[in-house]
Amino acid sequence: MAQQKKMVEDITSMEEDFAKWYTDIVKKAELIEYTSVKGCMVIRPYGYAIWENMQRILDGMFKETGHENVCMPMFIPESLLQKEKDHVEGFAPEVAWVTHGGSEKLEERLCVRPTSETLFCEHYANIIHSHRDLPKLYNQWVSVVRWEKTTRPFLRSREFLWQEGHTIHATAEEAVIETEKMLNVYATFCEKYLAMPVIKGKKTESDKFAGAVSTYAIEALMHDGKALQAGTSHYFGDGFAKAFGIQYQSKENKLEYPHQTSWGVTTRLIGAIIMTHGDDNGLVLPPAVAPIQAVIVPIAAHKEGVLEKSAEVASGLKSAGIRVKLDDSNNSAGWKFAEYEMKGVPIRIELGPRDIENNQCVIVTRHNNEKTVVSLENLSETISQKLEEVNSALYNKALENRERRTYSCTSMDEIKAILEEKGDGFVKAMWCGEEECEDKVKELTGVGSRCIPFDQENLSETCVCCGKPAKHMVYWGKAY
Amino acid sequence: MAQQKKMVEDITSMEEDFAKWYTDIVKKAELIEYTSVKGCMVIRPYGYAIWENMQRILDGMFKETGHENVCMPMFIPESLLQKEKDHVEGFAPEVAWVTHGGSEKLEERLCVRPTSETLFCEHYANIIHSHRDLPKLYNQWVSVVRWEKTTRPFLRSREFLWQEGHTIHATAEEAVIETEKMLNVYATFCEKYLAMPVIKGKKTESDKFAGAVSTYAIEALMHDGKALQAGTSHYFGDGFAKAFGIQYQSKENKLEYPHQTSWGVTTRLIGAIIMTHGDDNGLVLPPAVAPIQAVIVPIAAHKEGVLEKSAEVASGLKSAGIRVKLDDSNNSAGWKFAEYEMKGVPIRIELGPRDIENNQCVIVTRHNNEKTVVSLENLSETISQKLEEVNSALYNKALENRERRTYSCTSMDEIKAILEEKGDGFVKAMWCGEEECEDKVKELTGVGSRCIPFDQENLSETCVCCGKPAKHMVYWGKAY
Repeated sequence: MAQQKKMVEDITSMEEDFAKWYTDIVKKAELIEYTSVKGCMVIRPYGYAIWENMQRILDGMFKETGHENVCMPMFIPESLLQKEKDHVEGFAPEVAWVTHGGSEKLEERLCVRPTSETLFCEHYANIIHSHRDLPKLYNQWVSVVRWEKTTRPFLRSREFLWQEGHTIHATAEEAVIETEKMLNVYATFCEKYLAMPVIKGKKTESDKFAGAVSTYAIEALMHDGKALQAGTSHYFGDGFAKAFGIQYQSKENKLEYPHQTSWGVTTRLIGAIIMTHGDDNGLVLPPAVAPIQAVIVPIAAHKEGVLEKSAEVASGLKSAGIRVKLDDSNNSAGWKFAEYEMKGVPIRIELGPRDIENNQCVIVTRHNNEKTVVSLENLSETISQKLEEVNSALYNKALENRERRTYSCTSMDEIKAILEEKGDGFVKAMWCGEEECEDKVKELTGVGSRCIPFDQENLSETCVCCGKPAKHMVYWGKAY
Repeated sequence: MAQQKKMVEDITSMEEDFAKWYTDIVKKAELIEYTSVKGCMVIRPYGYAIWENMQRILDGMFKETGHENVCMPMFIPESLLQKEKDHVEGFAPEVAWVTHGGSEKLEERLCVRPTSETLFCEHYANIIHSHRDLPKLYNQWVSVVRWEKTTRPFLRSREFLWQEGHTIHATAEEAVIETEKMLNVYATFCEKYLAMPVIKGKKTESDKFAGAVSTYAIEALMHDGKALQAGTSHYFGDGFAKAFGIQYQSKENKLEYPHQTSWGVTTRLIGAIIMTHGDDNGLVLPPAVAPIQAVIVPIAAHKEGVLEKSAEVASGLKSAGIRVKLDDSNNSAGWKFAEYEMKGVPIRIELGPRDIENNQCVIVTRHNNEKTVVSLENLSETISQKLEEVNSALYNKALENRERRTYSCTSMDEIKAILEEKGDGFVKAMWCGEEECEDKVKELTGVGSRCIPFDQENLSETCVCCGKPAKHMVYWGKAY
């Protein structure tokens, strides 16, 4: 028990220092380790396994919606990056530049891709000639590099893993439908598999992706009341096609410019689940992406039959498709309890001599520390059912947190007062659509526009800032 | 039929120009497309799907042997790369250097990883303290960069995809066992799933990986008689541990240096299967990694019931786990035949009105163009069985080619004469173990040492070059 206490004491509490609590967890749950390159991290086996689970589910969803995986080079020649004006302005200040190959200076600098629109466009120009070549629905799983000043594991790092979808269509209408479809895929993924409720909406003009006509996003509210952009989907119109000379022969035999989209989610989602579900004992993982869904801890393991029965139970759960781990190491049961709490394993199964006698075991759910005694008969069904309950409970808890921290406001004073009184959260307020007001709200209240939600409400007729007629309801918040 | 002829005419024949035949296939089977960065390519959906199949199988084999996936950064600081003397000497001349982040010059140059030993070592030094922390059995799926002068798609490119396994063990013995185990995993993978026979052996001193104590390799013989190194596994001893200060407390409470290995295979394997199985009509893919295992081509598709029946057959095969494609496009049957021949789809299923009447279909196997009429009853079993037969036939054909082109020689003159008479191939000949003789064989006969095979034969008592006592039988060949 001394060991158990020690581990728990090692984490800063959320209340005391949320940022420190977060970095304590990523280290102590063995998700990452720092390296000698600032802002670049090692994703350790337990962290990478979460990402692999996310990948597997998302990749299935992408393939089901007709997308194919490809792989573009990691380097972009400077001249290629410069072809689309807004795009290069947005990304050039934060790219890493390769200037030498071996001992030779390159004729042209290459940047390490911060995103791959320009590479896809060069490729499209090579392979698209006729309406029969459209649409192309592509995706790739790679890492990208953005030379950020301040970095935090998963949330903002210089190199991060992501998927980037890139599609090209004959008509604007088709491309818009695709942009919305993929935002919906992301929302479904977050809500169903990460138990994380999200707000779907459109970014304001000032917050669009560099080169996009419009950017859609899903926004989630973290435990500390800060907002996190969890995924984005961009509609490009034919701007990139014009800049890169991509044209196709239509059915009517005319040369036309096609329309494009791109969309992405990143390892940031691991940060999102830490800050949505975690607590002062460590990680709490949603079952769908947990590397270990249930851990078996034998009690009085030295007693006859305990290890054998534990192994039998483990093997039964494994064949039912449950990701189970039997910890038969020599560490104390108390140490193990704390260890798997820290690692956020959804269910702990305790199995001791008396349990075996009674053909039962004790199951403890991580998120609420609730103990239940259940029969070993049909255990895999019981556990599968329990995992679903855990998922719903996590979702509901996160939703409650968001609802409790979402405030409707109709004046600047009200925004300031409510944030002062209740702490950070989402503020819903009306907006006239002018960038000046958007900036002023941020400057005076501290919350920036997160998105114009698809689900609009009419909170008042006038802009919360200038009092002129309102165009949209906006979610405002402090962002990660 | 005009279209069919046109496509076939488009490929250079192997006899005429093997190198041109190869590049024709990678382009026309839509495996890759070139980009504006020399030596970097787009891997297109059909090529990437082959790699995904390889990944899935290999990843399963790695996990079964106890390995965990991780992800290291893509950048290595210059000072870190320099820590192990032999390693930096081998790799520094061919790395890409990042010198700027945004508009700022970096304090220290970073290279884009050519391989990740140094990053793993830095990480090991952080996380390994006690014998209880050992072994670590890691792997990662990433891309690496080597600034090659001459490049060819898949075979030698500046950026390529691979997996790199990295393990660290308490004892030298354990590490040697691991090195050999993973070479065996590679050999099994190539022979069982790629239908490509390989020679397992040890590299000579001059051909070792930079920093290794010993390098093992699998070598395959391509259709043109040239050798291709298909995978390598390295034993490092404790050299890296000493250079990076990695130590652990043993059970006896002493500070010890651990022992390391690394091993890798790359997208080069796609090149290997092209040059092992391909023919003048295009690709021939081994069923285990073929993106499409069977393609259904409806005959007289406008006739009533043909498309419906084709869809029904496709859906039946799909539920049996066969990767099937129904091509119901408006292209002519002849065009489709040529298209899927080019793409190397192992089995074509033809289904026309008369077939449907007789409850049968025609199946044509790609590698030998053999037609069989089979019943639609139990078709998925028939196809599964046929896919296995195809796999064996491909393996046997490749093995026969290798046997026919493997020559035992006991003198330099014999080597020259046999290569002159029969063309390139593997030469088996005895060697004294001196680098001078190794170089001289290459200089005078054109074939370099490929490996010292584990299966040794005693062809004569003396070195083929100097006549002194022989130590090893060596496979010699011209290498890709």
